[in-house]
Amino acid sequence: MRTVWWSKDRVKIIDQTKLPFQTRILAFRDYRNLAQAIKEMRLRGAPAIGAATALGIALGVNYSKASSYKKLSQELNRIVKTFQGTRPTAANLFWACRRMREKFWENKDKSPREIKRILIQEAKRIAQEDIECCKRIGRIGASLIKKGDSILTHCNTGALATVGYGTALGVIKKAHGEGKGIRVFVGETRPRLQGARLTTWELKREGIPFTLITDNMAGYFMKRREIDLVMVGADRIAGNGDVVNKIGTYPLAVLAKEHRIPFYVACPTSTIDLGISSGEEIPIEERDKREVTHIGGRALVPKGTRAANPAFDLTPHEYIKAIITEKGIARRPYRESLKKLFI
Amino acid sequence: MRTVWWSKDRVKIIDQTKLPFQTRILAFRDYRNLAQAIKEMRLRGAPAIGAATALGIALGVNYSKASSYKKLSQELNRIVKTFQGTRPTAANLFWACRRMREKFWENKDKSPREIKRILIQEAKRIAQEDIECCKRIGRIGASLIKKGDSILTHCNTGALATVGYGTALGVIKKAHGEGKGIRVFVGETRPRLQGARLTTWELKREGIPFTLITDNMAGYFMKRREIDLVMVGADRIAGNGDVVNKIGTYPLAVLAKEHRIPFYVACPTSTIDLGISSGEEIPIEERDKREVTHIGGRALVPKGTRAANPAFDLTPHEYIKAIITEKGIARRPYRESLKKLFI
Repeated sequence: MRTVWWSKDRVKIIDQTKLPFQTRILAFRDYRNLAQAIKEMRLRGAPAIGAATALGIALGVNYSKASSYKKLSQELNRIVKTFQGTRPTAANLFWACRRMREKFWENKDKSPREIKRILIQEAKRIAQEDIECCKRIGRIGASLIKKGDSILTHCNTGALATVGYGTALGVIKKAHGEGKGIRVFVGETRPRLQGARLTTWELKREGIPFTLITDNMAGYFMKRREIDLVMVGADRIAGNGDVVNKIGTYPLAVLAKEHRIPFYVACPTSTIDLGISSGEEIPIEERDKREVTHIGGRALVPKGTRAANPAFDLTPHEYIKAIITEKGIARRPYRESLKKLFI
Repeated sequence: MRTVWWSKDRVKIIDQTKLPFQTRILAFRDYRNLAQAIKEMRLRGAPAIGAATALGIALGVNYSKASSYKKLSQELNRIVKTFQGTRPTAANLFWACRRMREKFWENKDKSPREIKRILIQEAKRIAQEDIECCKRIGRIGASLIKKGDSILTHCNTGALATVGYGTALGVIKKAHGEGKGIRVFVGETRPRLQGARLTTWELKREGIPFTLITDNMAGYFMKRREIDLVMVGADRIAGNGDVVNKIGTYPLAVLAKEHRIPFYVACPTSTIDLGISSGEEIPIEERDKREVTHIGGRALVPKGTRAANPAFDLTPHEYIKAIITEKGIARRPYRESLKKLFI
């Protein structure tokens, strides 16, 4: 299964707002519509957003009528800006923009037609690399899982959050594949229920035993010693190891500390933003309050109810036992260990 | 507004499963139907369950055809057993059963007709006392609230959770009434959304400013220092001060500790069960998993998804700054301070 791919000069994605009840494929010819789909979270998960952005940039450039490098470059700027305006927190989005831009610059002496071909190739490579990256994360991370472990995870960090395998859920899949006899607690992940809708769907397909819980039940099960470790993904990691991830991650880290349960983060290095010194500087996306007050278009609350909807929270590095990447496992002090991953 | 009351030989309640969209009154002539309504959480909140149980016992006895004290006593046992089978965690339910039983025994020399009259009177008194009790809790608790405080609350502990005023929400109402300029964060309280549906409804009626959040956002707002204190109710408190309350309470207590924010519990003394030495002995009700997997009859998750649904969790006494009751504020060590409330 792939979440996003290039097909016949179009970018295709699975519409995740319809899952698990309907597997609908969307095809985009106009990069602006793809950007809008990312905004609406039809595709989500930082690594998937990164790959979709790369493919989207290739899409936009490919359909450009610009006849000179300069004009194409102006077009590229517009396209990049559009994608950068979709989800401000996901590091991979900005990483993909940088990488596509660099490829563009490197080939400034080529014809527009040639540049288009190269950018499509590069975007496909980014998507392909993501899958391989996830598989390495899975292999490396599975070494931290013991036989019979019961793992709590949050949101969706599986194939659907990436191009094809998963980060935290990739580790879980790998550990399961190694016959470790694990079981999983899935936090439903309000407000958008990615855990309840997407992670359960993936775990079912893989035949991995799991129990769905509401987010506020994690403490109950930790206290009963039914959870051995927490494994989550990340949307952006600062140079000091602070992790910004789906809202509800930070409380799990605090609970894990209180119960002396290890708290792990799994992500590709493209999620790590060494340019940002501390998590406090990472912008947190505030989304429409209707995501909190409504489910499936139906109001849950009295009319006019004021609600907050920060999409992410910050888990300071001191709560994190290890950060698992495709280049190895980083441990405290993160400022040094994360830097080493990029050497 | 009253949540439960006696009217023309019937017990009436507001059907809380229809709120906030519809204010439907249910009238019961058969105590078994009232017990069923409690089971289905058409009326909920430990103090409200206590009062409804007392009125329900009076209802059952009143319609009994038993002609002797012995027969009426057997009937009473059946009725009490029925109510005790509804919600195993709520202390007030068992407290109300004990109190009604004692009244019955005290009057064993009276005629069945006279006993029925006395029990109806006693049940009405229990309901009336609950309102007065809540008002005292409000007055006493408001002394702990400072001007401009921002208060996080969980579930519904207002008029709807009691006979008429509220416990934790009663304190909040009183502090608001005293012009303290407070504001409230309301946790939506998955799975049944009592915060989102009921607490918002009550706060709106009272004109108290509030913001609805999903339960997993509490950590985010505490970290930003936007929450000054946590105020919740209780379903049962053990002799050592351990508090069992709506699922999701314990994580809030852990987060409050981590952020050095005071965590208060407000409840009538009828919620305190001195017969139970530690919270570990309090039975936790496990409810239908459909409450987690469905909303309004509609599935949120893939078919056959396994889910857990403990309705309550245990907050150990060391996390609790004070327990506010109608007889005063108990502080550590709770084993002594709680006992003193009963002298």
